Amino acid sequence: MTAATLTIATTTDEVEAAAKSAHAAFLSAAGTDPSTRAGWLDAVAQALRENAGELVPLGVADTHLAEARLQGELKRSAFQLELLAGEVRSGVVLDAVIDHTDPDWGMGPRPDIRRVNVPLGVVGVFGASNFPFAFSVMGGDSASALAAGCAVLHKIHPGHKTLALRTAEVVVEALRNAGAPEGLFAVVDGRPAAEAMVDHPLVKAIGFTGSTAGGRALFNRVSARPEPIPFYGELGSINPVFVLPEAWSSRSADILSGYAASFTMGMGQFCTKPGVLFIPDSATEDLLRGALAPALEQAPLAKLLTPGLRNSFGQARDGVAGFDGVRALVPGSDDEAPSPTVLLTDAAAVRSNPEILRQEMFGPATVVVRYSSPAVLPELAQAMEGQLTATIHADDADDAGDLLRTLTGIAGRVLWNGWPTGVTVSHAQQHGGPYPATTAPGTTSVGTAAVGRFTRPVAYQDVPDSALNPALQEANPWGIRRRVDGRFDDAPSGFGEAVR
Amino acid sequence: MTAATLTIATTTDEVEAAAKSAHAAFLSAAGTDPSTRAGWLDAVAQALRENAGELVPLGVADTHLAEARLQGELKRSAFQLELLAGEVRSGVVLDAVIDHTDPDWGMGPRPDIRRVNVPLGVVGVFGASNFPFAFSVMGGDSASALAAGCAVLHKIHPGHKTLALRTAEVVVEALRNAGAPEGLFAVVDGRPAAEAMVDHPLVKAIGFTGSTAGGRALFNRVSARPEPIPFYGELGSINPVFVLPEAWSSRSADILSGYAASFTMGMGQFCTKPGVLFIPDSATEDLLRGALAPALEQAPLAKLLTPGLRNSFGQARDGVAGFDGVRALVPGSDDEAPSPTVLLTDAAAVRSNPEILRQEMFGPATVVVRYSSPAVLPELAQAMEGQLTATIHADDADDAGDLLRTLTGIAGRVLWNGWPTGVTVSHAQQHGGPYPATTAPGTTSVGTAAVGRFTRPVAYQDVPDSALNPALQEANPWGIRRRVDGRFDDAPSGFGEAVR
Repeated sequence: MTAATLTIATTTDEVEAAAKSAHAAFLSAAGTDPSTRAGWLDAVAQALRENAGELVPLGVADTHLAEARLQGELKRSAFQLELLAGEVRSGVVLDAVIDHTDPDWGMGPRPDIRRVNVPLGVVGVFGASNFPFAFSVMGGDSASALAAGCAVLHKIHPGHKTLALRTAEVVVEALRNAGAPEGLFAVVDGRPAAEAMVDHPLVKAIGFTGSTAGGRALFNRVSARPEPIPFYGELGSINPVFVLPEAWSSRSADILSGYAASFTMGMGQFCTKPGVLFIPDSATEDLLRGALAPALEQAPLAKLLTPGLRNSFGQARDGVAGFDGVRALVPGSDDEAPSPTVLLTDAAAVRSNPEILRQEMFGPATVVVRYSSPAVLPELAQAMEGQLTATIHADDADDAGDLLRTLTGIAGRVLWNGWPTGVTVSHAQQHGGPYPATTAPGTTSVGTAAVGRFTRPVAYQDVPDSALNPALQEANPWGIRRRVDGRFDDAPSGFGEAVR
Repeated sequence: MTAATLTIATTTDEVEAAAKSAHAAFLSAAGTDPSTRAGWLDAVAQALRENAGELVPLGVADTHLAEARLQGELKRSAFQLELLAGEVRSGVVLDAVIDHTDPDWGMGPRPDIRRVNVPLGVVGVFGASNFPFAFSVMGGDSASALAAGCAVLHKIHPGHKTLALRTAEVVVEALRNAGAPEGLFAVVDGRPAAEAMVDHPLVKAIGFTGSTAGGRALFNRVSARPEPIPFYGELGSINPVFVLPEAWSSRSADILSGYAASFTMGMGQFCTKPGVLFIPDSATEDLLRGALAPALEQAPLAKLLTPGLRNSFGQARDGVAGFDGVRALVPGSDDEAPSPTVLLTDAAAVRSNPEILRQEMFGPATVVVRYSSPAVLPELAQAMEGQLTATIHADDADDAGDLLRTLTGIAGRVLWNGWPTGVTVSHAQQHGGPYPATTAPGTTSVGTAAVGRFTRPVAYQDVPDSALNPALQEANPWGIRRRVDGRFDDAPSGFGEAVR
C-alpha cells in the first residue's frame, strides 16, 4: 500500500482548516446509504489487518507492550469495525420509528411523525495511552463515530506517536480507496491543537479515555463552551472484587492466582484492573503471600507506557501505602519496570478512610482488604465511587443478593467468578458507569451501543415520502428494522451475523 | 378523595430528608415487576382525570390560561402516563440484550454478557411555568422518571403554586393507594431548596424546562458538582418557518392566518412558538397586515403567566424591534395582556446581524423576514442556533432539498406545511435539539423515548441465572422483548396498544 500523505494539524489555524474539511466531508457523506458506509468501516478493518506486520512492531517500540497483546488488540479493533459495519447495514443504528396519522390517538389527532437518528457532525477523539489500537486512532470512539455517520478529528497520543501517525496514514488511505470523502478522518497533534479542537464550534462531541484529572479538566472546558456539547469521558475506576466466605474457603488459591494475573496484566495499565480485593480476615499474611507469589513471579516486567505514567504510578501507590492502616504485603520495586505491589488493609481502616478505596493506582499495584463479616460488604461498596466494573466471587452457599444489588447501583458491568480485565465487544456489552468511571453514565464506549453516542434523533412531521430519508420512507427501501405504530417490524434479513 | 398530607421541603435540611426518603423509596421499588410499576403510572393518570374538575380551575386562576386549553393539557398528561405505562409493561424501557457464551466470537471467546437498563436513582424535576400540567408536577419529566424506575423530587414553579401543591397531593395519594413506596414522589419549594436539590449527592439527574439564562446557570451548577450528573435542560427555541415561493404564491393568506394563530396561541407562551417567518419579498406590507389582521383580532388576550415573564417579554420584544433594519409591522400594545406584535425585516438585515434570529421573545411577538431568493434560506437557517423545531411550507414545484438537509442539522423536529405548536406524545416524537434548544441534543423530553434519559445500562457477565434481574433470565419470565445474540426476539404479546 502506498502511504497516504497525512496532514497533521498542530496550530489553531490548521485545526480550523481540518475542522472545516471534516465538516464538509460529513455533509458530503450525509446521504450515503448504509451499505456503502458499512463498506468504509470494513475497508479500514481490512487495512488494519493487512498492515499488522508493520503496525504491531511500531506499537511494541512505542509502548513496551508485548507483541502478542498488541496483535490481539489490532484484531479486536478490526473486529469492532466489522461488527459495527453489520449494525450500520442492518439499520439498527438509525433506530427508525414511524407513527402514522391517527385521528383517534388518545390525546387528540396525531400527525404523521417519523424519527431517525442522524449523526452529530464532527467528533473529536482523544487517543488513550494504554490501548494504542483499541482506544486510539481507530479505536472504539473513532469506529463508533464513523458508524454513526460522523467525521472524526483524532488527537494523537504522544505516548505512541510513531504508531499513531502510521495508523492514521493507513486509515486515511483505506477510506480514500473505499470512496469516502476526503477529510472524513484527520489527526491533530499537541496541546494547542487539542484545545482548539475541543473549542471549535463545528466539533459536536468529544470522546476521551484517560485520567480523572485530565478528563475532568476537559469536561469542564467542554461544559464552558458557548455551545456545550456531549463529552464522553472515561476517567478512573478501581474495579473492586468481592470474595464471599464460601468461595474463599473452597478456592482461595485459585482466586489469588487469578487476581495476581489480572492486576499485573499489561503491567496493570488497564482501566479495568482489579484495584481492590475484599477477602475474609481468616486469610493470614503468609497464606496470601504464598498463594500470590507464583503468579506474581510469572508476570513479565516491562517499562510503563510513558515516563509520566511511571511517575504518577509511584506517587499514587506510595500515597495509598501511606494511609493509616495500610501496609505492604508484597512491596514492589522502584525500577523503571516496577515489580508488582500488593497492599494490605482491613474493613475498619477503609471505613474510617474511604479514600483508600478511591485512589486509582494506574500500574501494577492493588489493595487487599480483609473483612470480618460479609454483611459489611454492601456498605463498603457504597463508599466507593462510580465504577466501570465490580466483581463478586461466590459459591452457591454464599448470600450475594444485597451485594449484587449494591454493585448494580455503582458499576456499569458486574462480573461473577471472573476478572474484569478483558472487555468483549458485543451487542450486550456496557463499558461505562457512574462518575468518575465516566462522565456520561448512560452510555458505553465498547460494543455496538457505543454508536448511539454520536447521533441525535430528528423527527419529521407530515413530510412527503419522497423528501424523507429512505430510512423513513413508507416502502422501507433499505429493508431496515423499524418500529411502526408501536410495533417492531423486524427487517426480513437477519443481522448481527455479519462477522460470525 | 381525602387529601394526602403533603410534605414540602423548603430548607436544606428538609431537602436532605426528602432526598434520603426518595432514595430509600427508589431502592425499595427496585425489584418491582413491570406490571406493578406500570400500575402506579396508571393510578396517577386516573387520579389526574378524576380530579380534573378541581385542578383545572386552580390552573386557570394561577396562570390565566384558558380552561379548554388546560383541560386538554391535563388529558395529555394523563395519556402520557398511560402510554409510558404501556412501554413499561412491554419491557421496551429495559432494552434487554443477551449475548450468550460464544467460543468462536471473532475477537476471541465471548463470555455470557447480559445488559439491562436500570434507573438512575433520585431525579430532580423543575416545573415549567407555561405548561402547568404537561411540563410540571406530573409532566413529561416526572412521568418518564417514574417509568424509568426513579424517584422524583419536584421543584414547584412559583407561577402556579396553588395548582402545583394540590396536584402533588393528588399524585402522592394516588401512588400511596396504588402501593408505591412512600417518598417516591415529593416536592421542594423555593430557591434555597432548589439549589440544595441540584447539589445533593443522591440526586442523579435533573430535568428542567425554562429560559436559556436560568437553564444555563443550572447546567453550569450541575457540571461543577463533584459528581456531575446528566442535566436535561430545554432552554430556548425560535422555531423558524420557511415559506418557499410556490407555496407563498398559491396560499399566502392561509399561511399568514395559520402563522398568526400559532404564534398567538396561549399568548405565545410555547417553547415551539414560531418566532420567525421567512417569506418572499414580493409580499407588500399592506398585504401582510391585511392577511394577518383577522387572525390577530381573533386571538383572545390574557395576562402573561407571571409579572416577571411580562417584564422579560417586553424587554425581549423591544430589544429585537430596536435592531437595525427591524420595524414594527403590527405594533403590539404594552398592556398587562399585551396584544400581538409582528416585526418586519429582510434577509440583508439578518445576515448582517444574526442576533435578530437568536433572541427568543417569550410571549405574543414574532418576526417576518422577507427574502429575495430562496437560495439564501439554507445560509440563513445555518446562522440560527439549535432549535426544537423548524418548518417548511412548500408546494411540489418548490425545491426544498437543501433547506430540509440544513434544518435536519439544526432542529429536533422538522415540519412540513404545518405549525410547530402542538407536540403529540408518541413513539416517534422528538422534542429536543442542539443547544440552546436543549443541553442534551441526543434526548427527547416528549414521547416514549423520554424514559431512557433516566436509566443507564448495566451488563452482567457470567452471573448465574437465578441471581439475574428477571428481564435477563433465560426463561424470560416477564415475556418482554429482548435482543438475543444479535437478533431481536419480540415478545409474544403486542404492545404500544395499551391506550388505543
